[in-house]
Amino acid sequence: MTDMLSAETGTQTGDHAVERTIRHNDRTHVLHSWSAQAKIDPLPVEGGLGSTFWDYQGNSYLDFGAQLVNLNLGHQHPDLVKSIQDQAGKMATIQPAFANDVRGELAALIASKAPGTLNKVFFTNGGAEANENAVRMARAFTGKSKILAQYRSYHGATSTAMALTGDPRRWANEPGAASVAHFFGPYAYRSPFHSSSPEEESARALEHLESVIVLEGASTIGGIIIETVVGTNGILVPPPGYLPGVRALCDKYGIVYIADEVMAGFGRIGEWFAVDAFDVVPDLISFAKGVNSGYVPLGGVVMSDEIAAIFDEKAYPGGLTYSGHPLACAPGVATFKVFERDGILAHVRDLGSRVVKPILESWLHKHPSVGEIRGQGLFWAVELVTNKDTREPLVPFNAAGEAARPMAEVVAACKARGVWPMTNNNRVHICPPLVITEEELRAGLAAIDEALTVADGFVR
Amino acid sequence: MTDMLSAETGTQTGDHAVERTIRHNDRTHVLHSWSAQAKIDPLPVEGGLGSTFWDYQGNSYLDFGAQLVNLNLGHQHPDLVKSIQDQAGKMATIQPAFANDVRGELAALIASKAPGTLNKVFFTNGGAEANENAVRMARAFTGKSKILAQYRSYHGATSTAMALTGDPRRWANEPGAASVAHFFGPYAYRSPFHSSSPEEESARALEHLESVIVLEGASTIGGIIIETVVGTNGILVPPPGYLPGVRALCDKYGIVYIADEVMAGFGRIGEWFAVDAFDVVPDLISFAKGVNSGYVPLGGVVMSDEIAAIFDEKAYPGGLTYSGHPLACAPGVATFKVFERDGILAHVRDLGSRVVKPILESWLHKHPSVGEIRGQGLFWAVELVTNKDTREPLVPFNAAGEAARPMAEVVAACKARGVWPMTNNNRVHICPPLVITEEELRAGLAAIDEALTVADGFVR
Repeated sequence: MTDMLSAETGTQTGDHAVERTIRHNDRTHVLHSWSAQAKIDPLPVEGGLGSTFWDYQGNSYLDFGAQLVNLNLGHQHPDLVKSIQDQAGKMATIQPAFANDVRGELAALIASKAPGTLNKVFFTNGGAEANENAVRMARAFTGKSKILAQYRSYHGATSTAMALTGDPRRWANEPGAASVAHFFGPYAYRSPFHSSSPEEESARALEHLESVIVLEGASTIGGIIIETVVGTNGILVPPPGYLPGVRALCDKYGIVYIADEVMAGFGRIGEWFAVDAFDVVPDLISFAKGVNSGYVPLGGVVMSDEIAAIFDEKAYPGGLTYSGHPLACAPGVATFKVFERDGILAHVRDLGSRVVKPILESWLHKHPSVGEIRGQGLFWAVELVTNKDTREPLVPFNAAGEAARPMAEVVAACKARGVWPMTNNNRVHICPPLVITEEELRAGLAAIDEALTVADGFVR
Repeated sequence: MTDMLSAETGTQTGDHAVERTIRHNDRTHVLHSWSAQAKIDPLPVEGGLGSTFWDYQGNSYLDFGAQLVNLNLGHQHPDLVKSIQDQAGKMATIQPAFANDVRGELAALIASKAPGTLNKVFFTNGGAEANENAVRMARAFTGKSKILAQYRSYHGATSTAMALTGDPRRWANEPGAASVAHFFGPYAYRSPFHSSSPEEESARALEHLESVIVLEGASTIGGIIIETVVGTNGILVPPPGYLPGVRALCDKYGIVYIADEVMAGFGRIGEWFAVDAFDVVPDLISFAKGVNSGYVPLGGVVMSDEIAAIFDEKAYPGGLTYSGHPLACAPGVATFKVFERDGILAHVRDLGSRVVKPILESWLHKHPSVGEIRGQGLFWAVELVTNKDTREPLVPFNAAGEAARPMAEVVAACKARGVWPMTNNNRVHICPPLVITEEELRAGLAAIDEALTVADGFVR
């Protein structure tokens, strides 16, 4: 009987065997990030296309996290795939000391879109190394070592990037790199400054930052790093005047302003670089993820002429084997072409303002568990609470196990409705691929809308 | 006239225009590793195949550094290229939280070749992140933070990897991460221990290491990291008994033994993992480069069952967006297949012992500038001196500019003879792709042989 069944449903049985092998290899031989290995059950994914991916059981999911907010042009974009296949056939790799066509072309494209005099690029393999090198540049340029970074931030998992990070992932890595101090950024919904308007939040956050600069000692501070829109830690869009105020403080005290746009850059909020939406020009911008949708590991820092100039005569004290890797740069170049040809930025702005914003605003009234919604482009947070008046989060900060159950149930409800959501603490984040269609976006939001009734059940 | 010339030599003129664009983009927009940008002139490389690459001027070079000692299977290996093209067409990327076929397959292959109980892999984008994570594991496992590392070593350029590094690239990055102390490894030709035989060097190096452990405090030391064969800092092959002695000291004092095999692993010395040549099983092995010849950025750590077990119930406190990237793992899987099918390890051992060793030994007698040769497989150093008796290096340690001229002239002489050499301080390193043919190898060594007459001119 078993043999007959196998014969009759050959493909399916075959797929099950494939899936078993994948699960076996994975559980036996792969250590997964940020996880207790016995408490996870990694889903084998068979494939993806555009904004959808599917497992070996025939279940499809709308990818509302764009994987880890990197898949800006979606799964298996034909132009990106072709750029990789062509580059692999031509020149898979060459070391950083040589000049290379596609590396130079991508650097020129990035410079063409970067603000101010940010014209030169140092390439890395990802966002953590991008921030490590941004800090290296700030220290070399100013001769001062301390870096200020925000609470509620994520900057990567290598030592300095981890020390900069302002979320619980830092805790298990302490004591960490020295010469980092943390400050509070604006967060109007849970204001650290007891403000009552975005303008007041901005002003008080700047007053706080200046106090930290004065008390930490401006003469010790080489850089301030800020996610232009805070990502994993809450999709916190800076209030009016905040980032220009940071720029002014950096100028006043001789500090390098580093904008971390690993998540927010490359179209996520409808701009090439997110700073463009906030009328500010930083000295350094770190990037990764969206630059080539993560099809090949790539990150980097684009720097001002003033900072680049100091490395003309003085050796740049950093490097890596795969800096400016051709195979990674090729889909970066393709990304620029697709963005221009397909009007990706306009698409993101349109969907953000015309579709996501009004739907999420309607949830504020519809769902007793929705305390706040905020965002821009295709980068949004829905903050879930047990009580709209007290604003008590649906789950405690950094909750795990039973304490995190309400969010786990929301996640399960989303998945049951065909949406793979991105969540953090008490928030659902809406950050699908930028190529998502209006129909897919509305379908995904409708599924999450339904799933939020689960959160409503925990309101008291 | 100009137009006619263009028409007559169309391709060549076209290539010159392409080369000009590449040079312009590179010099204007790309920051190069470890360099004063005004003092370098990066060569545009047009292509490569096997052990050779060429520029846009029709000059070809035998690649005797395998780029940055990463191109173990050479330029444009058809199996690796195809594996990338196929994987790109199937699934370019998927985030680390999912299970993936090729990621699990590569992890299983690595585990199958790794010694002892090293059965689980954490993947990164390169060697620096591999060492960052190895340190993270050692600290988590022991609860002790200090790491001992060797002088004359290189471990990468992110903060902790840089702090571990024992070469001048660390100097410009100090003060660095805390909780690192450096010790001397064996180096018989310039013994820090005044020894007179490899056996004595080994014994005294172990005595020294134990003294450092005792004086730094065994209760503070979580790990010892050693390049199994020291790479950039001298191709230092450990003398008999040294690494087993390190293993014994680690066991005695409750310290994790981390083997950095970013360069030495994956066939470079004719072994899957270099430790196999020295009868020792470390707790952690970091790798990168040769795992997929650097066609796609990839690195990782393979860990013992004992260390892996602590992350079953306790969350592993590290991660990265591109951990276990499918596009990087595919050429890793292909690498294993090519190694097995083509007998790469046997080829490396054969060429190393039958071709490289006797030729280099002949140089000891032929060239007054050749003070010592040493190595294994296709990983060799030729140490150049001004005087064989005093062993004074041909150029001072960390020399630059005029002081480094003798080595610059040796490099130029190699390039003029069609070999792109790998050099460091007063040494020429021999580390071509592992797929090099005997004919190419002999031709390259003959060219270097001729170039060494330039070094002989500086002997006094």
